[in-house]
Amino acid sequence: MKPGVINLSEKLSLFSEHWSPKIIAQMNDHHFKLVRLSGEFVWHTHEHTDEVFLVLEGEMTIDLPEGDTAVLGPGEMIVIPKGVEHRPRADTECRVMLVEYAGTVNTGDAEGDLTAPDDVWI
Amino acid sequence: MKPGVINLSEKLSLFSEHWSPKIIAQMNDHHFKLVRLSGEFVWHTHEHTDEVFLVLEGEMTIDLPEGDTAVLGPGEMIVIPKGVEHRPRADTECRVMLVEYAGTVNTGDAEGDLTAPDDVWI
Repeated sequence: MKPGVINLSEKLSLFSEHWSPKIIAQMNDHHFKLVRLSGEFVWHTHEHTDEVFLVLEGEMTIDLPEGDTAVLGPGEMIVIPKGVEHRPRADTECRVMLVEYAGTVNTGDAEGDLTAPDDVWI
Repeated sequence: MKPGVINLSEKLSLFSEHWSPKIIAQMNDHHFKLVRLSGEFVWHTHEHTDEVFLVLEGEMTIDLPEGDTAVLGPGEMIVIPKGVEHRPRADTECRVMLVEYAGTVNTGDAEGDLTAPDDVWI
């Protein structure tokens, strides 16, 4: 198989819904995903995986335990360690690349209306 | 531990040498690294890990088996599967984020003058 070049902007143009990560690549046992964030997500925890957020466009905030918050703009990333509760939010749409174990569900331990399929490739 | 925001441009400004990846984050058993490429690297293979290249600035080419080449600009990434021989090169300096298993040596099976330490954090 010839490895293919993945253009992040082109991939982002293929969907418009919010809070619904799309897989763009697998590396070892991890998935790279793109997601559009807007508004406030749910507090949740991933018990089995660290999670990387890399902001491509826009600005996002991640609420963390004990009142801490992290604010990320384009070209900034953060690693949320497994087991650490967090809540992503964005006042206006923010486009993000996620890296986490394949099979990770977006809402972690907080399954509900915002839970999205974990196996959609674009 | 409070997760910290990692600014890729700030991290890139901390070093100037070529072909010497610096670790900026660990996620599960993987490292995220930044590297500046210029000129031609050696043909090599990583037997035990896939490798992601994400171009941040500039343009790079990756030579692949059977005369194939991949050309990547900013916002483009590629996954080189484990065991696939490849040779990165860049006519002018290119700044790249790598993702691969922790402990991966840059020259893989082709240890030599271009082999860099695999454990330098910035």
